[in-house]
Amino acid sequence: MRLGIDIGGTKTAAVALDAEGSARHAVELPTELGPEAVVATVAEAAGRLAERAGTPIHGFEAIGIGVPGTVDPATGDVTHAVNLGVESLPLARLAEAALGVPVRVENDVNAAALGAAHVMRAGGGAPVASMAYLNLGTGLAAGLVIDGRVHRGATGLAGEIGHLPMVSDGELCPCGQRGCLELLASGSALARLWPGDGSAPPARALFDAADAGDPVALAVRSDFAASVAAAVRLLVLTADPELVVIGGGISALGDRLLAAVRGALLADGERSPFLAAARLPDRLRIVPRDVPVAAIGAALVGDPTAAAREEAPWPRS
Amino acid sequence: MRLGIDIGGTKTAAVALDAEGSARHAVELPTELGPEAVVATVAEAAGRLAERAGTPIHGFEAIGIGVPGTVDPATGDVTHAVNLGVESLPLARLAEAALGVPVRVENDVNAAALGAAHVMRAGGGAPVASMAYLNLGTGLAAGLVIDGRVHRGATGLAGEIGHLPMVSDGELCPCGQRGCLELLASGSALARLWPGDGSAPPARALFDAADAGDPVALAVRSDFAASVAAAVRLLVLTADPELVVIGGGISALGDRLLAAVRGALLADGERSPFLAAARLPDRLRIVPRDVPVAAIGAALVGDPTAAAREEAPWPRS
Repeated sequence: MRLGIDIGGTKTAAVALDAEGSARHAVELPTELGPEAVVATVAEAAGRLAERAGTPIHGFEAIGIGVPGTVDPATGDVTHAVNLGVESLPLARLAEAALGVPVRVENDVNAAALGAAHVMRAGGGAPVASMAYLNLGTGLAAGLVIDGRVHRGATGLAGEIGHLPMVSDGELCPCGQRGCLELLASGSALARLWPGDGSAPPARALFDAADAGDPVALAVRSDFAASVAAAVRLLVLTADPELVVIGGGISALGDRLLAAVRGALLADGERSPFLAAARLPDRLRIVPRDVPVAAIGAALVGDPTAAAREEAPWPRS
Repeated sequence: MRLGIDIGGTKTAAVALDAEGSARHAVELPTELGPEAVVATVAEAAGRLAERAGTPIHGFEAIGIGVPGTVDPATGDVTHAVNLGVESLPLARLAEAALGVPVRVENDVNAAALGAAHVMRAGGGAPVASMAYLNLGTGLAAGLVIDGRVHRGATGLAGEIGHLPMVSDGELCPCGQRGCLELLASGSALARLWPGDGSAPPARALFDAADAGDPVALAVRSDFAASVAAAVRLLVLTADPELVVIGGGISALGDRLLAAVRGALLADGERSPFLAAARLPDRLRIVPRDVPVAAIGAALVGDPTAAAREEAPWPRS
């Protein structure tokens, strides 16, 4: 069995994968912020999951952690995890000290990309080998899976498409540029464009109002869908993945989001035979609701192949 | 010895690489347009190069062809090679029939990317393993080298960044979209923006006029450099290559082009600490003048490693 832990800005999810790669047990608890508290949250999640799985922590074949920020894949050190109140943290080392076993650390969007490739499955039931995972959370970023492995790039910047400017003279982004994609297609963008009355998340409030015929909501939703479609086009015309899978908080909208973005992609294709030939609507998927893809991917980090799993089989208790 | 042939819209270049990967012999001849004429040009180039190298054509260890258009890597069939007057052509099969030896075919920008990775060399003299090749020719497209191999993507669209819209409500592109990057940063863009008197290529005429202080030329050059810088940013924030190497006809400007684009990247970095941390100016290179990177890459197609070369050593005559 493998253990994966996804540390988010508000909650931490942990999942156990069996030898066949199926999620067997899961726990979720609030994330405590700050360096020591983050490590304590990891230890708490691992302990609860081990208890639920009926195994000691050293009984897990592999333990991986997904975390926001910049991760050094060699050392497992984390920097710039602003949402966790962490500027710099030797997470792998501290988690290993707390758990008493080796731990691998990966950026959370990259982990989610690996988890989504595992969950979506291609023909024959194999994980999707060529995929872009488009995370629509508070911000916007993508994770690339190439030949079945996470593509981090030379400096860990691969997939940082949220900070590509899309609008000349657009709004000022905290990154210092103007008109960044993240300002148009993310949870924070929707919270700004459609604050609502707070009774529902902005994305759901917007889609509800649009479905009810509110003309402003229809326009805001249309612009939002066009910006997500631009992200899909961007991913295909650079890395050319077989699938683009949308995840993150906004993906809880499910088929309603899929329909809006597919509609925008179809409209783009009607204007451009070149885009139509790229079959963007056919490549679009959304992660199944309530599947913790980042925790699942964290469990697979560094060792996504069945062959590798067979080399280190789950020890029978 | 390996033979590489690059079929361009106006000329066809052929080069022989020795066992160490150094270019030993080269020929260049005008490309004859149309399916039969293209194959005849390939045969003529191969024949002349074999004569110059003092070897029969079957004495070459491997023969590769770079060609514009969409290439099926499995069959070597070419489609949409509009500049060659070719709609569809089983190029590998016809070239093999003409030459009597196996031939591999690759898209010309991908071949050039492989050739540039070979020519630029990283520390230790090895080919650059992680690189984006930005081709500024009549159009604009990129080739990605990941882990030392060409990344074609799932459908051969990887690197087609010329058709990413950069300006909302920009000019209509032949692809059907508006404001595509290719309309801002390519040879055809400069020919439109700075037609000149025809005594020099538009790119050179523009840079000469800007250096002479012409205020309109200075503005056009500044916009052009900013658009090339946007292409560099785009490549780094998606694939995150170690180097971005500019090639294609406009790269004949050499250090003058490099200085203009570096200047634009530095200005971007002054506005954005995020971009400054990505060290874009440090990643920028330009292919050495008069080095036929596409022909060199064609010679390496499908077999870029020294290890692979050792398995099929050059037969001594």
